[in-house]
Amino acid sequence: MRLALGLSYRGTAYKGWQSQPGGGTVQDALEAALGRFAACEVRTVCAGRTDAGVHALNQVVHLDIDRERENYSWVRGTNTFLPDDIAVQWCQRVPDHFHARNGARGRRYAYLLLESPVRPALESGQLGWTFRPLDGARLRAAANVLIGEHDYSAFRSSECQALSPVKQLREISIRRQGAVWRLEFEGSAFLHHMVRNIMGCLIMVASGRRESAWLADVLASRDRKLAAPTFMPDGLHFLGPRYDAEWALPERTPPFDALPADTAVLAF
Amino acid sequence: MRLALGLSYRGTAYKGWQSQPGGGTVQDALEAALGRFAACEVRTVCAGRTDAGVHALNQVVHLDIDRERENYSWVRGTNTFLPDDIAVQWCQRVPDHFHARNGARGRRYAYLLLESPVRPALESGQLGWTFRPLDGARLRAAANVLIGEHDYSAFRSSECQALSPVKQLREISIRRQGAVWRLEFEGSAFLHHMVRNIMGCLIMVASGRRESAWLADVLASRDRKLAAPTFMPDGLHFLGPRYDAEWALPERTPPFDALPADTAVLAF
Repeated sequence: MRLALGLSYRGTAYKGWQSQPGGGTVQDALEAALGRFAACEVRTVCAGRTDAGVHALNQVVHLDIDRERENYSWVRGTNTFLPDDIAVQWCQRVPDHFHARNGARGRRYAYLLLESPVRPALESGQLGWTFRPLDGARLRAAANVLIGEHDYSAFRSSECQALSPVKQLREISIRRQGAVWRLEFEGSAFLHHMVRNIMGCLIMVASGRRESAWLADVLASRDRKLAAPTFMPDGLHFLGPRYDAEWALPERTPPFDALPADTAVLAF
Repeated sequence: MRLALGLSYRGTAYKGWQSQPGGGTVQDALEAALGRFAACEVRTVCAGRTDAGVHALNQVVHLDIDRERENYSWVRGTNTFLPDDIAVQWCQRVPDHFHARNGARGRRYAYLLLESPVRPALESGQLGWTFRPLDGARLRAAANVLIGEHDYSAFRSSECQALSPVKQLREISIRRQGAVWRLEFEGSAFLHHMVRNIMGCLIMVASGRRESAWLADVLASRDRKLAAPTFMPDGLHFLGPRYDAEWALPERTPPFDALPADTAVLAF
């Protein structure tokens, strides 16, 4: 039978999602925990492979297994064998033709960026940081340049394995609360390093070092060498995939569902 | 000359504030960084000693030093030598009779508590966790029992070095956002483990396992053995001290000042 799991993790301590021979990835930790709980070898397929240092709120994976357990037992049992910074949040049985990666109709990422003369400490590893003041109107204008269906080769890492560099970037929503900017990216799929490369460019424009016209040229060039350096992974959070409604899978992890704030609920 | 510094840190990796022979504390890291930047030995006195695993937003310290530098240089220079999870946020010169601990007229702590069947992952180490549903009315009634000037011996660790167990607990404000409870404690000063011991008791009442009358009995008993076990440090944040207005010291660290949300701005 096929199961879908929703997973949240802090990526700081991991070499990204994808399993590696030497271990140390989120997938390695998850498959080891599932294997211990189920007492058999387990392989998983995820909706969105995250890089080293990138976090996830609702990473979705599927797996095939011939053990009968309650959904809640999969959550609780697997979590017993997972480290503190990874937790299964939900489990649902799905038909055998559900596929966590191929079935995803869209994916959402959020980038959290601290604009402050002083770097973060309490939230180190979980916020990007710029000491340069950012202009919201310039930031939004730059973001608008990138919306649509484009060849995003200029923002693609040389290690990217995607079949095509053409993707739909449907929305970049931008909010600010205090010193923290929150940029949410919704698209069909994302190339390797695409959000981080875009962040580098958006910050160049928002801090006044480049104009939006430059960003339009970078996009049109399809030349990675013209774009800004890849921005730090710390603030990047994979919010999760979107699937067709027929699967009835949670789009958010339950504890965070209505959580508009967090450690810095503190500052209220 | 005497300087006051405001410091924020994530306490997860440290053995608490107070310097130890083997190192590994926040004070050790701060004094080492100050010493490297100033090229001399530096000793600091803090407003509130935090336990292992406890965080701070605006810990205030004072130090005496005969180096002339701009305030901003102290911040930036010291941070160069501090680990990622500690950062000086501000620096101000103060008169020689300012004392970070003795001058504090009050102290504020916040405890962030996740109420969820599943433990936190993205925020592990930064949120307390209970899988038991909590009743807000019961939680508030229990908190009210503790407000006032009392002998808090029932909530005092055996290692507490305070001269007197009598303290003023002026306010416990309680808010909830989604699955996260935020309890803010304001008092004259706090005994060792006092907030964590109180949290354990409040959760006992709010989850229906004890009545508020039990908590009143615990308080009156002054007997630590009657109270609940010390609750986990993960969700505890020292918000900072309050001083007389004449010192004109920041009560919050600048980046977090207007920050009502954080990683879970995500869930907006």
